[in-house]
Amino acid sequence: MTRVLHLADLHGSLADPLLDAMTFLNEVTGRYPDAVSFAPGRPYEEFFDPAEIHTHLDTYLRHLREERGLSGSRVRQEVFQYGRTKGVIAPLIARALAADEGIEADPEALVVTVGAQEGMLLVLRALCAGPDDVLLVSAPCYVGVTGAARLLDLTVHPVPEAGRDGGLDPGALRAAVRELRAAGKRPRACYVVPDFANPSGASMDEPSRRRLLEVAEETGVLLIEDNPYGFFGRTAAARPTLKALDGDRGNVVYLGSFAKTCFPGARVGYLLADQRVAGPDGRTALLADELAKLKSMTTVNTSALSQAVIGGMLIGAGLRLRDANEPARRFYARNMDTLLEALQTAFQGVPGVSWNHPDGGYFAVVTVPFRADAQALDDCARKHGVLWTPMDGFYPGGGGERQLRLSCSYLTPEQITDGVRRLADFVKERTPEGS
Amino acid sequence: MTRVLHLADLHGSLADPLLDAMTFLNEVTGRYPDAVSFAPGRPYEEFFDPAEIHTHLDTYLRHLREERGLSGSRVRQEVFQYGRTKGVIAPLIARALAADEGIEADPEALVVTVGAQEGMLLVLRALCAGPDDVLLVSAPCYVGVTGAARLLDLTVHPVPEAGRDGGLDPGALRAAVRELRAAGKRPRACYVVPDFANPSGASMDEPSRRRLLEVAEETGVLLIEDNPYGFFGRTAAARPTLKALDGDRGNVVYLGSFAKTCFPGARVGYLLADQRVAGPDGRTALLADELAKLKSMTTVNTSALSQAVIGGMLIGAGLRLRDANEPARRFYARNMDTLLEALQTAFQGVPGVSWNHPDGGYFAVVTVPFRADAQALDDCARKHGVLWTPMDGFYPGGGGERQLRLSCSYLTPEQITDGVRRLADFVKERTPEGS
Repeated sequence: MTRVLHLADLHGSLADPLLDAMTFLNEVTGRYPDAVSFAPGRPYEEFFDPAEIHTHLDTYLRHLREERGLSGSRVRQEVFQYGRTKGVIAPLIARALAADEGIEADPEALVVTVGAQEGMLLVLRALCAGPDDVLLVSAPCYVGVTGAARLLDLTVHPVPEAGRDGGLDPGALRAAVRELRAAGKRPRACYVVPDFANPSGASMDEPSRRRLLEVAEETGVLLIEDNPYGFFGRTAAARPTLKALDGDRGNVVYLGSFAKTCFPGARVGYLLADQRVAGPDGRTALLADELAKLKSMTTVNTSALSQAVIGGMLIGAGLRLRDANEPARRFYARNMDTLLEALQTAFQGVPGVSWNHPDGGYFAVVTVPFRADAQALDDCARKHGVLWTPMDGFYPGGGGERQLRLSCSYLTPEQITDGVRRLADFVKERTPEGS
Repeated sequence: MTRVLHLADLHGSLADPLLDAMTFLNEVTGRYPDAVSFAPGRPYEEFFDPAEIHTHLDTYLRHLREERGLSGSRVRQEVFQYGRTKGVIAPLIARALAADEGIEADPEALVVTVGAQEGMLLVLRALCAGPDDVLLVSAPCYVGVTGAARLLDLTVHPVPEAGRDGGLDPGALRAAVRELRAAGKRPRACYVVPDFANPSGASMDEPSRRRLLEVAEETGVLLIEDNPYGFFGRTAAARPTLKALDGDRGNVVYLGSFAKTCFPGARVGYLLADQRVAGPDGRTALLADELAKLKSMTTVNTSALSQAVIGGMLIGAGLRLRDANEPARRFYARNMDTLLEALQTAFQGVPGVSWNHPDGGYFAVVTVPFRADAQALDDCARKHGVLWTPMDGFYPGGGGERQLRLSCSYLTPEQITDGVRRLADFVKERTPEGS
């Protein structure tokens, strides 16, 4: 007989309703494999070809030998051994950041991470030291952030987005910081996705971005800018990242991800943390170096193989990833257009139903006149063959009970139109007569 | 002007002397690139060939298509997309564990992790929930464990090894558990490397392993068995792992690593956690599934690319990794023999100098009649061109001030002999006359 442990004796995060809800959602999705799924925030996978992995790897190996002049022995080391904790492709990432975002990054201020998720964990761990420290997050918020905070027993405080399409509200951040300080708390940082946020799809306009940076400067609260979807606007025009607008003022720690711009299976992301950290002896170090010390306690290194393949993709794209993603941008833009048109066709004039109009990205949010919870999802999948994500789990302070998230990244336009039709049948069936 | 943060405001782990010491050691090593280095615990890298990555990847892709019958689309998903948080190569790992260690593992009880380091972090996080919870560790202990505990603000309590070559002392564990419980603490688990431990090189004999399992059963303290070096005995005879001896009694969470048996750059390890966890509703889940929930908050997935390459290596080795590592075993055994002979030649009869006699692995420990600290290391590197690791950082409760760790894994026999000769010059120079 094997030993039985009790959940009550394990870390509290494991009994958190949030994790249970996520497990349940995964189960539901698995139970209806033939449903049209608006659930997963995954890239469209017809862009991928396994044979290309060889090409990318060879491109990187050639780069090591020919551009960097490494010997056979040093090439071997680079690919097979333990390497620098901060990673080995930072110089390539810095060049792509300059070309794609106008961000001038010192490669030494970059840490290559196991996806943006590890980057978040490291930044949260470094910044939140004691029981009075508080992490502010946009509400609704990506669960990876609230989950990482839960793992570290951190306190999270929600900051509402401005309306359906406006993104994080700078005024609400200022008010939250005041309120927390008045209560003796120490607000440390605010997590925000300025472009096409997960789950809301909302974006901040440029004036809001500038106001948010002013609030950060004024309050001393760091902004943690997460930018997985920035390339995927419905128009090709790029909006400036918070980091680009902030320059070298140090108000922003920037989290990058190659999951959507290259592919998720590599698990390569990065963080840019060019703030200085002063020790007791007055010497200063880059925040990136402090974060790398923490990384040596989480994963030691990001896979050298994965870095090599992503490095090869960056080189192959001429160190301009935005251009290389133009076909993907057009694909996602067409899918979002299709989704919004289908919602219009299906729900125009339906009482109690409304939706937002994201400028790009993977996600849109629909409000319905009933509780859009896990039970409703299960009914909808069983009877109508369509899956979506309840929004309530994304609100750390409560809310979103009548909202559902639709992801359009993983489907064809035909599937989207069909899926919205099925969703409409479900919603109309649930909507009280005459409401 | 960029913003300056203060170390005192950041998480306490960043000001921990342990992390400072590690940073200093890295700097010293970097400052003397031409020294003979007994410092890094790295595998010998002449075993690696970049061209083989292609072969391993193709082997795995063929396995997906031909053995598992996956369509082109499913193969694409497997390599490029987000996948199961628990990983995709668990069935292959389970078969290798059966062949190599006689461990019968349910693949569902395995979680593929970003190296054993992430596995440790997950296990420590799950098991240690509150301020009274204590992690027991062998002393001396691998810094990755004490570092992960520091990151999570856990309390660590040292359990001494039995003499120089004996490994963790089961009686000392029993005594420590009693002492902690009497003080109102909750000892939760004990970390142990039974074979060729880092840093001591010590191993537990089979009777000690059985006694340790009895103590675990009797006290309810889980054993966290870490086994990176088990294949590398000086003789080919395998000793049973704690997990194999424990069978399905659930006293052991087993951490595995492919860093030394395949290569470190893949960052692939795994954990085997077949304990049951009972929730408040009486339903039970595998501990592995609970740990996977935590992994979704640290790294989401282990690189699918890295899993594919390691999967291909496992298949290429006929799912018997021990046999495939026989050339490496012989290489390391010869290096350890060379090291022990060189120490005998250099130090026999030198007063105050002694060393242990590991049965295998990468490490041996030398005791000297002076403080073997970072300053001594710097002097030794500068004047004598040889690097080693001070042992004091490996003792969470203090100790080891006159000990140094020699790693023989990364050198040729000629370098080892030369290095020990240089070390002897340094030690004799430092040793007080007539002591």
